[in-house]
Amino acid sequence: MNELLKYRRVVLLVDRLATPFLAKTAISMLRYRPDDIAAVLDTEQAGTTAEVLFGVGGKIPVVATLRDVDADALFIGIAPPGGMLPEHFRPFVEQALSVGIDVVSGLHDFLSNDPALTLLAKTHSAKILDVRKNPFRQTATGGDIAPDCLRVHSVGQDCSVGKMVATLEIQRELCRRGEDASFLATGQTGIMVSGKGLPIDCMVADFVNGAAERLVTESQDHEILLIEGQGSISHPSFSAVTVGLLHGCAPDGLVFCYEMGRKFVKGLDNIPLLPIGQMMDAYERTASLRHPCRIIGIAINSRNASAEEATEERDRVGKEFGLPACDVYRDGASALADAVVALKRELKS
Amino acid sequence: MNELLKYRRVVLLVDRLATPFLAKTAISMLRYRPDDIAAVLDTEQAGTTAEVLFGVGGKIPVVATLRDVDADALFIGIAPPGGMLPEHFRPFVEQALSVGIDVVSGLHDFLSNDPALTLLAKTHSAKILDVRKNPFRQTATGGDIAPDCLRVHSVGQDCSVGKMVATLEIQRELCRRGEDASFLATGQTGIMVSGKGLPIDCMVADFVNGAAERLVTESQDHEILLIEGQGSISHPSFSAVTVGLLHGCAPDGLVFCYEMGRKFVKGLDNIPLLPIGQMMDAYERTASLRHPCRIIGIAINSRNASAEEATEERDRVGKEFGLPACDVYRDGASALADAVVALKRELKS
Repeated sequence: MNELLKYRRVVLLVDRLATPFLAKTAISMLRYRPDDIAAVLDTEQAGTTAEVLFGVGGKIPVVATLRDVDADALFIGIAPPGGMLPEHFRPFVEQALSVGIDVVSGLHDFLSNDPALTLLAKTHSAKILDVRKNPFRQTATGGDIAPDCLRVHSVGQDCSVGKMVATLEIQRELCRRGEDASFLATGQTGIMVSGKGLPIDCMVADFVNGAAERLVTESQDHEILLIEGQGSISHPSFSAVTVGLLHGCAPDGLVFCYEMGRKFVKGLDNIPLLPIGQMMDAYERTASLRHPCRIIGIAINSRNASAEEATEERDRVGKEFGLPACDVYRDGASALADAVVALKRELKS
Repeated sequence: MNELLKYRRVVLLVDRLATPFLAKTAISMLRYRPDDIAAVLDTEQAGTTAEVLFGVGGKIPVVATLRDVDADALFIGIAPPGGMLPEHFRPFVEQALSVGIDVVSGLHDFLSNDPALTLLAKTHSAKILDVRKNPFRQTATGGDIAPDCLRVHSVGQDCSVGKMVATLEIQRELCRRGEDASFLATGQTGIMVSGKGLPIDCMVADFVNGAAERLVTESQDHEILLIEGQGSISHPSFSAVTVGLLHGCAPDGLVFCYEMGRKFVKGLDNIPLLPIGQMMDAYERTASLRHPCRIIGIAINSRNASAEEATEERDRVGKEFGLPACDVYRDGASALADAVVALKRELKS
C-alpha cells in the first residue's frame, strides 16, 4: 500500500456526511498529509475551507465538483459503520474514473468488485484501490515475536475515541527524541495516512490474530512498535476485532484511550459505556492471557471540553490510576512517550 | 443450508488424514448422522470399518475409491487449521463431480471459487456447496435479544475439546425431557450435522459479533438456545472468533469444556494451556462486559483417560468449582441439562 503515498493532489469525498464521526478518514488525511490534499468535496459546504469544516487543513478548499480541482486521486473520506458506499457517492466515483482519476476506498464494499466501475476504470486508465481488500490468510503461530522489540498498543473505551491519533502522536514524539519507533496501522485511515499496515477489521475471522501477528513480525527491525487499536473489548459489534488484534500483536504495554463525557457506545446509543477502571482491568487481564502486559498511560480525548475541564480531568484521572495522562492535542504526547521509554528501559534491564 | 440434510448416501473424504484431530468433521457426521453415511474414503485404511477407524459408525465401510459406493454426495471430512484443500484430495473431488456427485466442503479455501472444479460441476450437473461461504455482512446492534429466551453457550480451554459435542448432547437431553431447546451451529461441522447455522470463523472480522447475534435473534421462538462455541479466549490464533461469538450471542450461562491431560495449545505445542480456573474466570468476566453471565457447568473430555481417572477428575473438579461436571459420552448430559433447567427457572423467577 506504499503506492497510496504517491498521490499528491488528493480530493477527499465526504459529500453531505462531513461529521467528525463519519468523516474521520478525511480529517486524519487533513491532519497527517496536509500537503497532499487538493480539496474536500462536499456539495453542502462548498466554498468554505477545510479548517472551517473540520478545524484542520487550513485553507484547503471545500468544492462541489471534481471539475474545480486538478486531482490525481479521489479518496472516499468517510468510514461508515458497515462500510457500504453511500448511494449518492457513486456519481462522484464514476466521474473521477471517467476522467482518469484513481479512486481510493477503505470501505468493506469493495469498489473493485463492481463490474461497471471496473470497466470505467479500465477504459480510462484509472485505478481503483480498495485499502481493505486483502488476501491475507494465515493463522497466528503464537511465537516468532522478538522479545527485544517493544510493543505498545492503543486500546479504548469505545470506537472513535482517538486511538489512531494517540498512537501516531506518541510515535512522532518518540521519533523527535531519536527513538527508533514505527507506527503500525490496523485500519483503513491509518493505512491511507502511513501507506502501510493491514486492515484488521476485514480479515476473515480465523486470520485476525494472524494478521496482527504478521504486522509485528514484519516490523521487528524497529526497537519500538506503536500499534493502532480498533474498536473496544466491550463493544457489542466489534470486540472480535479488538481481541484478535490485542492477542495477535502481544503487546508489552497498553495506552488506554477514552473521550471525556461520552456516556454511550458510539452508534449504539442505548448501551452505556463501562467505567474506564473496569475497562482497563479487562484489557490488562485479557492481554495478559497471551503475554504479560499492563496499561502504561491514558490518552484523553477532550474535544468537547473546555481547557479548564480538560486539565481537571487529566489531573484527576492521572492521580486516580497512578498513570501518566494527557490529551495529545492539547498537551502533546510527551507524558506518554516518557512512559514508553520507561517501559523499554524496564524490560531491557 | 437445510439442503445439506437431503443427502442420504454421503461419502466422507478423509484420505490419509484420519486422525481424531483432523477428521473431526467425519467423526461428527458418523456420530450424529449415521444413517446418512454410505462410506468413509481413506486409501490407507480401506477394507476396515468406521468403527475400527474412529470408534464410531459401526459397520459403515472404509473404501479406497468412490467407484465402490452408490453415493449422492462427497463431504470433505477434515477441518485442517488454515482450511486449505490438501493437494491429494483434489482428484477425489474431481472424480465425484465428473460423475455428477455433489461435493460439500467446510474449508476456507472455497471449492466453488475454483474455475476448473466449477466447470466440471456444471458439465456434469453436480453441485459444489461451500458451507463456510457466506455473504453475511451486518454489524451487531447489541439489542433485539429477547430476555425470555435462555442462551447457554459452550466455551473451552482450547480448540477441539468437544464443545460441539457437549452442546449437542445437552440439547438432545433437554429435548428428551420435553424442553424446547435448539442447537445453534457456529462451525462447518455443526452446520453439516444440523443443516443450519452460521460459519462464524469465516465471517469478515467486523461482522463476527453480528453473525452470532443474528443466529440468536433468528431462533428466539425457542425457549432455550444451546450455542456451539469456537476456539478459546486465550488461543493465540483464534481468540477473535471466540470473543466475537461470546459477545454476539450474549449468553446467560456458559458450559466450560476441557480435555483431561491436555497441557499445550492444540496445534501450538510450545504454548502451555492456562489453568481452567483462570480460563473460567476470564470467560465470565469477558462475557459479562456484554451481558450478565456465569459458568453453570463443566464438560470434561476424558477420551484419553481410564474410567477410574475420569470419575476421579469429575468428582474433584466438580467439588473444587462447586459446579456440575461430567463427560457427556461417559456420564450422559443429565447433570448439565439440569443446570440449564435450573438457570431457566432462576431467570424466570
